[in-house]
Amino acid sequence: MPADLRVRFLHPTGAIGPGKIALLEAIDRTGSISAAARSLDMTFRRAWFLVETMNTAFREPVIRTSIGGREGGGAGLTALGQEVVARYRQTQDEARKAAEPHLRWLDEVLKEDAAGSKPPAG
Amino acid sequence: MPADLRVRFLHPTGAIGPGKIALLEAIDRTGSISAAARSLDMTFRRAWFLVETMNTAFREPVIRTSIGGREGGGAGLTALGQEVVARYRQTQDEARKAAEPHLRWLDEVLKEDAAGSKPPAG
Repeated sequence: MPADLRVRFLHPTGAIGPGKIALLEAIDRTGSISAAARSLDMTFRRAWFLVETMNTAFREPVIRTSIGGREGGGAGLTALGQEVVARYRQTQDEARKAAEPHLRWLDEVLKEDAAGSKPPAG
Repeated sequence: MPADLRVRFLHPTGAIGPGKIALLEAIDRTGSISAAARSLDMTFRRAWFLVETMNTAFREPVIRTSIGGREGGGAGLTALGQEVVARYRQTQDEARKAAEPHLRWLDEVLKEDAAGSKPPAG
C-alpha cells in the first residue's frame, strides 16, 4: 500500500477530519444515522454524538433528522452539510496532488510494512 | 482563532503527523530526547517510544543518539530525519495554501467557539 495523506480542519469549535466526513457521507448514502453507524462499524451512540457535535458547531445544521425520533426517522445532509463534504474532498484532493512527490519519496525511504520485511526482488 | 489545517502521512508502517514532526523538531532544537519531551510536555517514555517507532519504520534512522545511554547522551536528526521534517512542512504549507478559500469559508459557517457565543458586532 503506497503512502497517502489525510487532511484535518482545525477550529476552536472542534476538528473536522476523515472520521466526521465519512459519517456525513454515510448518512448521505444510507439516509439514516443508525444505518450510517452500522456501515462504519461505529456505535449508534457515537454516531449520534458526532451528529450533535457537528450540528452544534455550525451556525446552521449540517445534518437534518426527520420525524420519528432518533431511531425511527430518516436523516440526510442539508445543503450546508453537502458543501462541507465537497470542500473537504476538494481540499484532500488538492493536498494529495501537492504532496505527490513527497508521498513517492516516503515509499522509497520507509520500509514496506511494520515488520520491515520486503519480499526479495525477482 | 481562524480555521487551520493539518496533514498526516499514512503508510502501512504507521502514520506521520503533527505529533511526530513536533518531536523531531524538538529533538533538533534541544539536542536531547529528554529535553525535547519536556518541551512538548510529553513523558520521556512516550518520546522514546516514538523515536524507536520512527527509527524502525524508516530504512535508515531518522534520529541519532550518541554514547551516554538513553538519558545521558545527546540526540539529533540524521540527514534523512531533516528531510522528513522539511518535506512534511512543505506539504503542510502547500495544503494550507490550497485550502485557504475553504478555511475562510469555514470561518464564516462555523460558530466562533465551542459554546457558540459570538460577541455582538460594533
